[in-house]
This record gives sequence, C-alpha cells and structure tokens, in this order.
Amino acid sequence: NLPGYGKMDWVAVESDSSDVLRRPDCHRMMDMTAEKLQAIGGKVELVDIGVQELPDGKTVALPKVVTAQFGSDPSKQTVCVYGHVDVQPAKLEDGWATEPYNLTDINGHLYGRGASDNKAPVLAWIHTVEAYQALSIDLPVNVKFIIEGMEETGSNGLDAMIVAQKGTFFSDVDYIIISDCGWLSRRPALTYGTRGNCYFFAEVEGPKQDLHSGVYGGTVIEPMTDLIGILDTLISPSGKILIPGIREAVAPLSDEEWKMYQDIEFDIESFKSKIGVDLLAHRWRYPTVTIHGIEGAFSGPGSKTVIPAKVIAKFSIRQVPNMDPAVVKKQVTDYLYSVFAKRKSPNKLKVTMIIGAKPWLADTKHPLYEAGKAAVKRVFDVEPDLIREGGTIPIAKTFEDVTGKSIIMMPIGGFDDGLHSQNEKMSRYNYIEGTKLFIAYLHEVAHLKKD
Amino acid sequence: NLPGYGKMDWVAVESDSSDVLRRPDCHRMMDMTAEKLQAIGGKVELVDIGVQELPDGKTVALPKVVTAQFGSDPSKQTVCVYGHVDVQPAKLEDGWATEPYNLTDINGHLYGRGASDNKAPVLAWIHTVEAYQALSIDLPVNVKFIIEGMEETGSNGLDAMIVAQKGTFFSDVDYIIISDCGWLSRRPALTYGTRGNCYFFAEVEGPKQDLHSGVYGGTVIEPMTDLIGILDTLISPSGKILIPGIREAVAPLSDEEWKMYQDIEFDIESFKSKIGVDLLAHRWRYPTVTIHGIEGAFSGPGSKTVIPAKVIAKFSIRQVPNMDPAVVKKQVTDYLYSVFAKRKSPNKLKVTMIIGAKPWLADTKHPLYEAGKAAVKRVFDVEPDLIREGGTIPIAKTFEDVTGKSIIMMPIGGFDDGLHSQNEKMSRYNYIEGTKLFIAYLHEVAHLKKD
Repeated sequence: NLPGYGKMDWVAVESDSSDVLRRPDCHRMMDMTAEKLQAIGGKVELVDIGVQELPDGKTVALPKVVTAQFGSDPSKQTVCVYGHVDVQPAKLEDGWATEPYNLTDINGHLYGRGASDNKAPVLAWIHTVEAYQALSIDLPVNVKFIIEGMEETGSNGLDAMIVAQKGTFFSDVDYIIISDCGWLSRRPALTYGTRGNCYFFAEVEGPKQDLHSGVYGGTVIEPMTDLIGILDTLISPSGKILIPGIREAVAPLSDEEWKMYQDIEFDIESFKSKIGVDLLAHRWRYPTVTIHGIEGAFSGPGSKTVIPAKVIAKFSIRQVPNMDPAVVKKQVTDYLYSVFAKRKSPNKLKVTMIIGAKPWLADTKHPLYEAGKAAVKRVFDVEPDLIREGGTIPIAKTFEDVTGKSIIMMPIGGFDDGLHSQNEKMSRYNYIEGTKLFIAYLHEVAHLKKD
Repeated sequence: NLPGYGKMDWVAVESDSSDVLRRPDCHRMMDMTAEKLQAIGGKVELVDIGVQELPDGKTVALPKVVTAQFGSDPSKQTVCVYGHVDVQPAKLEDGWATEPYNLTDINGHLYGRGASDNKAPVLAWIHTVEAYQALSIDLPVNVKFIIEGMEETGSNGLDAMIVAQKGTFFSDVDYIIISDCGWLSRRPALTYGTRGNCYFFAEVEGPKQDLHSGVYGGTVIEPMTDLIGILDTLISPSGKILIPGIREAVAPLSDEEWKMYQDIEFDIESFKSKIGVDLLAHRWRYPTVTIHGIEGAFSGPGSKTVIPAKVIAKFSIRQVPNMDPAVVKKQVTDYLYSVFAKRKSPNKLKVTMIIGAKPWLADTKHPLYEAGKAAVKRVFDVEPDLIREGGTIPIAKTFEDVTGKSIIMMPIGGFDDGLHSQNEKMSRYNYIEGTKLFIAYLHEVAHLKKD
C-alpha cells in the first residue's frame, strides 16, 4: 500500500452511520479517506455539512464530505466519482463466519463489512489514479471525487452540499460515475436504474414501562399485539402490497423494456438456489415492502417474560417510477392510522417516514454508456449486461436534478457479495479486474465529444 | 452485614439465567448464597443438578442448587423456604434510570435487577435466622432452605432434584414457604394461587442468510411477513385469545370465589394510572397471550435495510385451572401450523414449547394461612389481602405433587416493584417490615399442631 491506508485498514473502521455511538469512527473514516487522496497528490477538501437532528431533539455532527481533484486541464473531460465509506451494522453474532471488521481472505474472497459496499470500489477508483501515476501517464480526463459517510442512512446533508457547490465544485464536471452496486451474474454489467426507498418507523406506545407478563398479562392491551396487527395489513401472504394507491402508481411495462430483459445473462439457477428468486422484474421495476424488525421488544436469545411498553417497527418500501416519496408517505400513514383506529386500542400510534429517496432511471443509449460498453469489452472481452438495481442510491436522482449532468453506474462487485448481509465480501478478481475496468473507462471517456 | 454478602453484593452479580454467556455469574451467585448460609451456621450443600441442553445440541452446566439446614429438633415443626437468586435480563439502555446491577437507594427505594425478584426476599429469610441468633433465641422451628438459579427460565433441573431428595432432604419438611411474589396494594397479602406458563418459540426460516432488501425485496416471500401473519392470529384486537380450545378449558368462576374478590384492597386508581388495568379477575383466573419479541430481526435504534433470513418469535400463554400444558402445546402448535399452511409460504415454520409450567391453587382455610394471617396482624396490625398471582412460580406445583406438603406464598414485595421491568426496586420499608413478618411467622408456625 501507498502512504495512507489499504482495504484492510478501511474495513477495520466500524463506520456504521446508523449508530450515533459510532459517529467518531465515521469521522475517522472521512479523515482517512482525505489523507489517502492527499497522499497521492489530490487537491482535497473536508466539507462541513452540518449536524444531524436525533429523534430526542439533540444534534450530532455529520461526517464531513471529502472532495478531491486530480487535474484541471480545461481541454479535457472532467468526471466526478461518487462513493461512500460508511457501512451497514454488522456483528459477529449475526452469523458472520469471520470478524466483520477484520478483512479476511478465504480462497480469494475478501470478507468484511464494507468490502463490497462501498469501500473497495472507492479504493479501486483511487488505485485507478495511482495506476496512471505509477506508469507516468497523464490522466486522460480530469478526475474529481466526492465521498460521503451517510449513504446507508439516506445521505443526510449531502443534497444541500451538492446544491451549495453546484456553481463551484460541480461547475466543470461533465459526467458523474457511481460504482455503488453489483453485477447480476458473472458477466460484467452497467446499471441504468435504481429503486427509491421510503423507510418508516411505526411506534406503538402503551404502559409507562415494560411490565411483567404474568403480573399484568390480560389486564392491558399490549402494544406488541397492536403493532403486529397493523404490520400484518401491509402485505398479503403472497407478497402483494395492500396499501391503497401504491400498486396503481407503478409505470406500465413497455414492450421495449420487456425485450431488453430477454438479453440479460441471468444466472437464474445460482440465483434461485441462493435465495429462491421469483421474477427478475420484481427486483427492478415493482415496489416491495420489507419489515426489518422491531425495536423495544425482547430480541435476545432465550426467554424473557415481559410486556414491552413501547415498540417501534422498522419497515421500508422500495419505490419505482412513477411513485413519489411524498405521496407514499401520505398513503402509508393514512392507511396505518385508519387500520389502527379500527382496533379501538388505548395505545398510541406514531408513524414517521425517516428516509424518502426517489428512484432513478438513465438512457442506455447515452454516449457515457457506449463508452462503458467499450471499456467492458476491452477488459473482459464480453458485452455488459444492462441492468437495473433493486437497491437505492438516493443521491443519483439529486445529482441529476441539481447538476443536470449525466450519470453512469458502473459496478464492480459480484452478484453474490452479500451487501448488507452476513459475510459480505468482494473477490480479489472483481477488485483487480474492476480497477482495470475503471482505468480503461477513463481512456474511453477521454474520446467522447465534450458537451 | 455479617460475613458473606449483603443485598448490594447480590444485586451486583448479573445472574441472568436466560443468557448462557452469563452462566459463570449464575455459578458465582450460587456460591455466594452457599457461603452466606454457611457463615451463619447452616449445614449447607451445593447440589449438582446436571446440564442444560442448548438448542444447538451443546450442553452447559446448570447452576447448582443450594440447600441449607438450621436446627434438626424432631419435636419442632420444620419449614423449608424456597427462593431463587437468578434474575431476568436488564440493560441500562432498556430505559433504567440507574445501572441495573448497581443497587441504588433513591428516597428509600432500592433500585436494581433482582432487588425484589427474588434476591431481597431470600436475604430477608436469611436475616430472619440472623435475627433469632442475634437475640440468642433458639429458632422456634427448624428452618431449611432450597435456593435455585434457574427460576426465570423454568427451573430447569429442579423437578428431578426434588424427586431425588424426596426421601432425604424433604423427608422431615412439614411446610414449604415461597416468597417470590408481591402485594396487590399497600396492604400486606398472602398468595393462594399462581398462573402457569407455556413459553413458545415460533421460528420462520427462509433464505440461507440475511438479504439486502433493495436487491432482493420483491423476489422472496420474507420470513418476517410470514411470522407477523401467524402472530396476528393469536389474539384479537380486544385481547381475546383466538387459539381454539384455550378459553373453553378455563374453570368457571364460582359465586364463592367472586365474593372473595369483593374484600380485596385493590388500589384501582394507582394501579390503573400505572398500567391501565382492565379487570382484576383477568390477572388471576384467565389465560393471556403475550408476544415478547422477535429474535433475528433488526432490533437496534436507527435504520437497517435487511431482509432477515430466520426470525424467531417469543410468546407465552399464562395458564389457569383447568388448563394443561401438554394440551396447550398441542393446541398452539396445531393451530399455528394450520394457519401457516394456509399461507402457502415457501418458508419453514418450527414451533416449540420451551417452558410448560402448571398453575397452582391453595386452600386459604389451611392452618398455614391462619398462621400467616396472625403474623401479618402482629406486624402490620391489619388483615392481609388474600390474593392470587398473575405470574408463575413453576416449582409450587412440583413441591405439592412430589412432597405432598402444604405450601404458603408469603410475599413482601410492593405492588409497584416492577418485576421483570425497568427500574425494579424494593422499598426499605418492605425489606425491613418483611423481615419482621418472617420472624413473626416462624413464631406462629411453631404453634401449629404437628401433622
């Protein structure tokens, strides 16, 4: 590794942005990112984006955003690479085979939280710059970086920063590149769409404190019973969303779109054996509701005989065109309050939407994608799959709306990397060939006509 | 404190029997109990009761049972005091105002996990022996102790130990006294019944590992959806148990029983303001279902976008005469499997009953209760309430069935002690006057005719 840090050191930082107690680690992660970019000659800034307001009214500083610049030749194209170095929560006892924050090589697979989402792709882009430097070749385009530390919880504060720097940092940017996703099979892919995400808390509060279920059971309407009851009205047993208005908002499937699906190399067998897949389209172009869990109830192993006094369900709805987060928020809250009212419960319900990220969709015939196809062809000698992502990259839509620049998503992670899951990994193959892809891509982009 | 330990040291031990990682603390707690009883002259034994089998097939040693004997005069009555020194789980972040394992005195209330359930009552019985010794008065009855460390998870291993020692340790015991419960109001009480408890795990397993809800949402039937769906069929919004056969098994309410309820000093206003009480009878003589929580789902603060692969609901049914745990087990499992089958889910359901404890009911006209009334009268100058307990003391039924001896439950804890809840406490008043009650009770029992 060059001065600064390598993948092992990056994964070792528990930069879990969802846990405010981990905020110092998130700050350290941003510092490390800035130091690394500076060490290889970048013009680096740590941009203060303010504070996060917590549910209890307190505030905590947001991780700063790192910007960097390599080259400023006005005759060259300028690309801006977006990435994030925060991660999802991970604990050994969740079922990891190795310590999640200790990057571990097993048969060429590098296991660790953030190994694929998104620390390695950010490093691969840094290695891309390093590779040109090591070969003493000028970068064929100017390269900028914008790296954040709040992606996993909705990119808090980043929207405002992009708006603020529209006329400065972003003024000379021609294209934005995002590598925060994965392939669909063993074939490399370019991504042209992502789903949005609305994340909800539904809190039912009853007694003033937890109660002994023997002593008090039968004398109170338990908040858990109410919460289970309303959660059960979100989805049918077959997976159909029951919230009125949601399914009606989905854009109809066009013939052209359906034809594109036929060309996808979709390793249905390996995908199916892994998770029991239903339909590819459901992953890309239909909404879905997931109940993630319940805070405040007993969640440990063993038995505990308590009536939880306040329970908070966490669920999210992945969104697609033409859904709108503001409308979804109203649909969900109206529906749950009306369902709850019918129960005539003495308890109190509070529904809040804590994340509202829009879906994003690009034109695969744009020159940026043609350059992407050429780079994939050069490194892997195949045509890329053109795919969408079921997950959400909230900032894509903001980049597009605020800067008006074109965006490409160029993944290097494997289809089985286990993002957000136990045993997240990236293969050495994807890490190294992925870096080569980025190197080739800068070369291809250099040949695009400047807008 | 005398040599050995006081209440502060006892509460400081995190003897949470539901968490196998805390098992060393449970062993230490039993050792401390034995040392304390030995220090004041008891003939003490630490009885090995074997191992506990864990769900993964491994075994772990059960906390030993402590027995002790003070006096063996065959012309005297012999009482055996039962208690336990294990506790329910407790964490500061659950909402405790003070560290749960650091006994804290606030305005005469002693806060700490186990302060009321059941460490202080066990110590009050020890202080009772100490009080007679300090006054150089012979104990009016022989006093035996049997103290266990697995009560909170179903008294694993104790039944077999009682059966094994029926002809030895229990052969000269006339009466069994249990002080593992609380008063109903500010008036002292004697307890003549407890509910039983059947504790169930319902596990729904789907994908091989947790999945990213964006990437996979919409392509799998999520285990959480299935689990929420079947949990929602257990109880109606108004709290009615929906499992066929349960309500039909409840013994009818007799006129005589109903009349007894009229005499109870029931601080309905303070009770009501505290937890929103419905009906006294529901606490004592009707079954109830409580959903305690879900293991395997996301339970932390903040947001996490994962589809949990395996989720385990924990729920329990408090039982009353004439319900039978074996029948309840069949009713619940049959019902849930049939409800689950109707969902036609690709996931797997496994329902297991991990605790099956019977209800217990005593005759309030028995001489043991007459002696109890006299002792309450002597110390508090009032008649005690005759009450039942909504909670479960599984071992009461075993004592009765195996030894054939009569049992009395003599609580000293306050109605608002918060057993199993945050901020569990016992007041100094209850601790000290409760000890006096025990001292007086031994005196009264000495005057009963020997069977």
